[in-house]
Amino acid sequence: MTQVLRLGLPAGSLQEATAELFRRAGYKLSFTSRSYYPSIDDPEIHCTLIRAQEMARYVRDGSLDCGLTGYDWIVENDAQDDVVELAELVFSKVSRRPVRWVLAVPQDSPIHTEQDLQGKRIATEVVNITQRWLAQRGITAQVEFSWGATEVKPPRLADAIVEATETGNSLRANNLRVVAEILTSTTRFIAHPAAAADPWKRQKMDDLVLMLRGAMAAEGKVGLMMNVRKVDVEKVLQVLPALQKPTISALSDPEWVDVMTIIDEDVVRHLIPRLKAAGACGIVEYPINKIIM
Amino acid sequence: MTQVLRLGLPAGSLQEATAELFRRAGYKLSFTSRSYYPSIDDPEIHCTLIRAQEMARYVRDGSLDCGLTGYDWIVENDAQDDVVELAELVFSKVSRRPVRWVLAVPQDSPIHTEQDLQGKRIATEVVNITQRWLAQRGITAQVEFSWGATEVKPPRLADAIVEATETGNSLRANNLRVVAEILTSTTRFIAHPAAAADPWKRQKMDDLVLMLRGAMAAEGKVGLMMNVRKVDVEKVLQVLPALQKPTISALSDPEWVDVMTIIDEDVVRHLIPRLKAAGACGIVEYPINKIIM
Amino acid sequence: MTQVLRLGLPAGSLQEATAELFRRAGYKLSFTSRSYYPSIDDPEIHCTLIRAQEMARYVRDGSLDCGLTGYDWIVENDAQDDVVELAELVFSKVSRRPVRWVLAVPQDSPIHTEQDLQGKRIATEVVNITQRWLAQRGITAQVEFSWGATEVKPPRLADAIVEATETGNSLRANNLRVVAEILTSTTRFIAHPAAAADPWKRQKMDDLVLMLRGAMAAEGKVGLMMNVRKVDVEKVLQVLPALQKPTISALSDPEWVDVMTIIDEDVVRHLIPRLKAAGACGIVEYPINKIIM
Amino acid sequence: MTQVLRLGLPAGSLQEATAELFRRAGYKLSFTSRSYYPSIDDPEIHCTLIRAQEMARYVRDGSLDCGLTGYDWIVENDAQDDVVELAELVFSKVSRRPVRWVLAVPQDSPIHTEQDLQGKRIATEVVNITQRWLAQRGITAQVEFSWGATEVKPPRLADAIVEATETGNSLRANNLRVVAEILTSTTRFIAHPAAAADPWKRQKMDDLVLMLRGAMAAEGKVGLMMNVRKVDVEKVLQVLPALQKPTISALSDPEWVDVMTIIDEDVVRHLIPRLKAAGACGIVEYPINKIIM
Amino acid sequence: MTQVLRLGLPAGSLQEATAELFRRAGYKLSFTSRSYYPSIDDPEIHCTLIRAQEMARYVRDGSLDCGLTGYDWIVENDAQDDVVELAELVFSKVSRRPVRWVLAVPQDSPIHTEQDLQGKRIATEVVNITQRWLAQRGITAQVEFSWGATEVKPPRLADAIVEATETGNSLRANNLRVVAEILTSTTRFIAHPAAAADPWKRQKMDDLVLMLRGAMAAEGKVGLMMNVRKVDVEKVLQVLPALQKPTISALSDPEWVDVMTIIDEDVVRHLIPRLKAAGACGIVEYPINKIIM
Amino acid sequence: MTQVLRLGLPAGSLQEATAELFRRAGYKLSFTSRSYYPSIDDPEIHCTLIRAQEMARYVRDGSLDCGLTGYDWIVENDAQDDVVELAELVFSKVSRRPVRWVLAVPQDSPIHTEQDLQGKRIATEVVNITQRWLAQRGITAQVEFSWGATEVKPPRLADAIVEATETGNSLRANNLRVVAEILTSTTRFIAHPAAAADPWKRQKMDDLVLMLRGAMAAEGKVGLMMNVRKVDVEKVLQVLPALQKPTISALSDPEWVDVMTIIDEDVVRHLIPRLKAAGACGIVEYPINKIIM
Repeated sequence: MTQVLRLGLPAGSLQEATAELFRRAGYKLSFTSRSYYPSIDDPEIHCTLIRAQEMARYVRDGSLDCGLTGYDWIVENDAQDDVVELAELVFSKVSRRPVRWVLAVPQDSPIHTEQDLQGKRIATEVVNITQRWLAQRGITAQVEFSWGATEVKPPRLADAIVEATETGNSLRANNLRVVAEILTSTTRFIAHPAAAADPWKRQKMDDLVLMLRGAMAAEGKVGLMMNVRKVDVEKVLQVLPALQKPTISALSDPEWVDVMTIIDEDVVRHLIPRLKAAGACGIVEYPINKIIM
Repeated sequence: MTQVLRLGLPAGSLQEATAELFRRAGYKLSFTSRSYYPSIDDPEIHCTLIRAQEMARYVRDGSLDCGLTGYDWIVENDAQDDVVELAELVFSKVSRRPVRWVLAVPQDSPIHTEQDLQGKRIATEVVNITQRWLAQRGITAQVEFSWGATEVKPPRLADAIVEATETGNSLRANNLRVVAEILTSTTRFIAHPAAAADPWKRQKMDDLVLMLRGAMAAEGKVGLMMNVRKVDVEKVLQVLPALQKPTISALSDPEWVDVMTIIDEDVVRHLIPRLKAAGACGIVEYPINKIIM
Repeated sequence: MTQVLRLGLPAGSLQEATAELFRRAGYKLSFTSRSYYPSIDDPEIHCTLIRAQEMARYVRDGSLDCGLTGYDWIVENDAQDDVVELAELVFSKVSRRPVRWVLAVPQDSPIHTEQDLQGKRIATEVVNITQRWLAQRGITAQVEFSWGATEVKPPRLADAIVEATETGNSLRANNLRVVAEILTSTTRFIAHPAAAADPWKRQKMDDLVLMLRGAMAAEGKVGLMMNVRKVDVEKVLQVLPALQKPTISALSDPEWVDVMTIIDEDVVRHLIPRLKAAGACGIVEYPINKIIM
Repeated sequence: MTQVLRLGLPAGSLQEATAELFRRAGYKLSFTSRSYYPSIDDPEIHCTLIRAQEMARYVRDGSLDCGLTGYDWIVENDAQDDVVELAELVFSKVSRRPVRWVLAVPQDSPIHTEQDLQGKRIATEVVNITQRWLAQRGITAQVEFSWGATEVKPPRLADAIVEATETGNSLRANNLRVVAEILTSTTRFIAHPAAAADPWKRQKMDDLVLMLRGAMAAEGKVGLMMNVRKVDVEKVLQVLPALQKPTISALSDPEWVDVMTIIDEDVVRHLIPRLKAAGACGIVEYPINKIIM
Repeated sequence: MTQVLRLGLPAGSLQEATAELFRRAGYKLSFTSRSYYPSIDDPEIHCTLIRAQEMARYVRDGSLDCGLTGYDWIVENDAQDDVVELAELVFSKVSRRPVRWVLAVPQDSPIHTEQDLQGKRIATEVVNITQRWLAQRGITAQVEFSWGATEVKPPRLADAIVEATETGNSLRANNLRVVAEILTSTTRFIAHPAAAADPWKRQKMDDLVLMLRGAMAAEGKVGLMMNVRKVDVEKVLQVLPALQKPTISALSDPEWVDVMTIIDEDVVRHLIPRLKAAGACGIVEYPINKIIM
Repeated sequence: MTQVLRLGLPAGSLQEATAELFRRAGYKLSFTSRSYYPSIDDPEIHCTLIRAQEMARYVRDGSLDCGLTGYDWIVENDAQDDVVELAELVFSKVSRRPVRWVLAVPQDSPIHTEQDLQGKRIATEVVNITQRWLAQRGITAQVEFSWGATEVKPPRLADAIVEATETGNSLRANNLRVVAEILTSTTRFIAHPAAAADPWKRQKMDDLVLMLRGAMAAEGKVGLMMNVRKVDVEKVLQVLPALQKPTISALSDPEWVDVMTIIDEDVVRHLIPRLKAAGACGIVEYPINKIIM
């Protein structure tokens, strides 16, 4: 009988970014509208779309072998001790910065320190995280579950909010001031302990994580190749960043070598003028898909 | 100082249908992207977009004077005794049928009666309604809050669900069977008791309700006018539905009158052949915007 | 048992125009993508989408009770003596002009008269019509069925074509010259003889035709109402076209009457200056949906 | 030989609004992409699309008989004494407010009065208007023609600007402060003096203006009809605005009359509750296309 | 005088896929809307868009030198002995699977074997293929040309159909059962015998076929390069598929070599974990455009 | 304090092409709607969107350090002696051909030579260029500034025009004939003399130009690599164009080498058949991003 890995993928705002990451990692993931079971071109993996908020719940109870979700929702479900974290995956729909959950108030609010929250009304999607954070500080406040649009609620519908932010744009647009940072969160690949202990499932998950990391590592990277006179090789290598050992190939003309390396796309424009000055010629930049160091 | 009525409008799936209803009622409501304060061309009304789920909460605590929301969310917030219902507004984004919250299970589930739910796992967005309904029947079950896509959870992630349905399409598509109907819900115009007792606010809300009802009443209605010989008037009137007394105008030709009436658009095609047979001629159908009986 | 009228609607280019005509006639016709059975809000009618080219075939053999199709395809199927024509419906997707099937050749072709076609290669979608037309004139030519893009075939892939045209634009764009007009065609409502003889089906079809005609008659028409002094009524009536007898209502002010009439929208701009000159005032133009004379 | 009226229409931002106005006035105006000669369904009118900025130039030199353009561009071309103004047409793409040309500077500019402009650099599309305005005040400044995006030039690329504004939104968005208002402008229908003196052309233009005014007058207006007991007529009439004398028709029931009137759509919601209180019933609001008082 | 190759390209559903294949093969093919003569950046090729159904007809009669069309339409036109097949090109708009023409009936049809078709009505676009297939089996049936939507005709408008299918989705959606497979078809590059015998045209066509094959071969392939210690090369090579001999380059560090190879994109994820285990490092995957073995 | 290079980018039709060129050169340039200050991922560069027509004006007066604009607008502003040209950049939105400003007249115009322009009316956007050109030839004519749609003005609104053309399509579409070519223009990178003399700014601009040139050079180029037996290397090299010296790498198999080169994409299809014939095998084409010779 075929073994199957039951994998949960986050529905909603991260869905397209996840599919794109899998695609670059070499998996064809496709969503049929209205279906919550995306197809993947690996018959040994069965995917289910689940809201990120609920992922930890279903991995913990073994309904799924593993899944991708945010560290925030793992904590909100109080599941951090019940699931095994196999990898941290830094990617997101807007930026590559981690998500920060902050406690924010209107610019002109009288609330300036954590203690000022005593007796106030706080709206948030992460009620448990917020209540635990308040309890640790001995503060009593009314924490209300917010169904959405949390950032527009102060001051009329709440005194403060706890809300996720990546760039801070939404806070600025709503004229809010950060009082405290509650939690920083990135995407995690989590597994049920029994799945992590099963050799077949573990190998399957490790391979998947290796490929996802390869695709993430290649993002924003390009290949560079150039011809260099042997006498100039040392100078050229000093210009190149130490990230990866360049490949130096012999050419049929014994006075020249070919140098190949992988570098960050956004330093290319700083490097090329210096490489040229150091004696490199015929510099060619080419795209890459994946890199496994 | 200008008095202002603070009106909550439901954000999300009903938003466009609400704006359209207001527009037909004679109010220009416009949404600016990212703003939760729609503009309205009446300086005495201040609108706020709020999720339907939270509307009753904010009308109950007086943050808003009044708002539109579903009866279901009034009950889920246990607010039915704390707010004043000024009108039932029958409209929706998909159909004009009320929303039904049903308890559903997979077609091949062993659950057939309410009692079979004992000890099962039920996923739903309306945790309070469900728990109260189970308690009334002496059933103990695990009710889990569902963040979305509830209808795809059985059987792997839940044994049963309580979910809203208008047409039953989504239940059919997910191969679910209805075990019980929990609640039937329509849109309500609710007010805070103090606002309902304030004469200026009450008049403002009553006028608004009158216009919304006028626009709803005109939906699917058209005007019909025709020339009829006096001797045929009786026959023609018998064909017309009794909905509204037709207007019969004298013409300069004393043998003829003009008959005008308002009827349902979808009976026009049945009426016209019979009106013609009864002696009406020059039958003209024209559109109407609003009707106040 | 419920009786049902099996109605064929033309799929393809006329589909949307047909749905729009039915909608204006008071029927809600809706297409679900990929389904060939449009839903209609009359349980006694069952609709089937059929290519206009095949409609006469299926009405003739009784698979359908009735259908809408072009006169051209009735003739191409040689069905004109086997089906009953209940109405000619003048509407089309591009213009309200009838479709003309013409025999066309390149501007610089040596073919100038019908006789020049002897021995030539003619491409067309209407092979039967073309062959019959040639036979009547004693001309022998090779008629080839064209699967599409007929108008670009001359001179390389055909010497002449027989093709449908409404505005002549496509002929001009392809630099073609008309040698002869083969057939003029409009949309027809056809029925199987047995259906036309069945009283229930006949009544159903007659009512449908009445409503379709009412909607077509209202297209491009508007209502006009105005106040006129009794002494000026004669002058005003002389300005109005004789199309329909205007409705003249008595007003409470005995010196004035109200004149209402229905006229073509595109003469309004010519009439209004003359009506004003004749003494009409408070002239109001309003839209209408349907008119049954 | 057919006479033809050569009419210039403003290309660009006002183009669609103009076509819509003509359409409501009863003329079918259609633009073919890339053609500057829109087709109109009146063979006696020949339309040309011209930039509003150049319209007065070509009407003045007789290349066109008449055209629509802004008062601003008439003045910028110094053509106000050379063309005949037949009508002021108040409509625009954004609002119905006239366009104001204002002299604006950055919020924190040292320029506060007109005199502070001495020796400064001013960017504008209306170089002539600005220079004349400065000369009248004895101010010397460098006026530079701006090809676009004028409002973003201060303070780096200009000290002040003269720019058109309808709502003030763009000024606010660019943090600019108005120092003086230079000119207020609305759309005008202008004619070459010879065309205005030619009886056939004058009649043609007068009819066109009459219809355009009828369409503009109907904008935002609706029809209202209601049944009223004769004893209540006086009360009902007092509620109705004095804009137009209502039409009061006799009904066959001698105790009742039918009252019809045209009113502004945005007062309907204030009137209806009061009309109902005054005894009106069966109040129906219906749309209108055009009104000629 | 310049020689020209007259090439037919299939219009319609394969059009975009064909253009994309040519583009990847290094030819810029562009369609101007309404033109049936796509431009190509090779002055020695003249393209014509032709329906796939008619391609064989026009290549057979020499109107075109060569063209791309399906094997099915070559057979339907009975042209397989009259044209020269230069290549089979496996690509399609939906999948890379060949098209199968199947005889299908409704799930609950009494037709189970080929013999049950005796006397039945069969609708199809491939009348000749179907009639020949029936004749070979001694079956007499009524074969009707279907203008489209063939799969919805049974059981009301036909007893069986012969229809093309790639994935079987449309058959399943219409609840049809396959009784027999009539023909399997892929795209072919066909030429007129005289063109195939002309040295210049033959060379031109052979080069074109070589490039098309190079582009098809590269589809779904990627390049892989990695650094390997000389002692590990044997182990690494055993992991790589035998598809193509890898390129092993000497590096300046004499203990290491660089290994480059081309592999199927969808085995990358299986290979990389094993390559890493075998000692490869700095594994980089990069995209390729074309590969000629 | 951070030094900043103030760079002007052309707004309007070249905007997207410029952003794409910068992106390929390694700079992330992004436009926020309504902002005229595009963000770039280099904190030492500050971008401003300026109409190409005004760029030379603002670089000349030092408001900007440098900018991209057409040679035509440099000349129209009479700035060619006041700014320093650092590079000619050949790219454009439609084609890579330079823009030609031509004097054109209607096909049937009596104007055939430059002298025929005496006393005529010429419409153009480049009034200065046109007047200077006429003065050099001793011709007196009325040159009118055209706000747009210049090519549709003859013959009714102008006798001749001076207008930009890349492909000649617009001239042909408007039935115009070229009488003389006035100016040929390409995009230039210009700098204020003081900026060009400032070492930091000059280095910054030189690096930017180097990268832009690298991206332009890579456009339409691809990489080609192949395995060749040592005995065939000479034959293979003779087939390759002399554009760049190919890189010849030693392979571990001493009888073979690997040949890599960069060539124009549109010659690949001519080269590959000849490379194969010359003994190359395993030919792989891969994409490149940038090339600095």
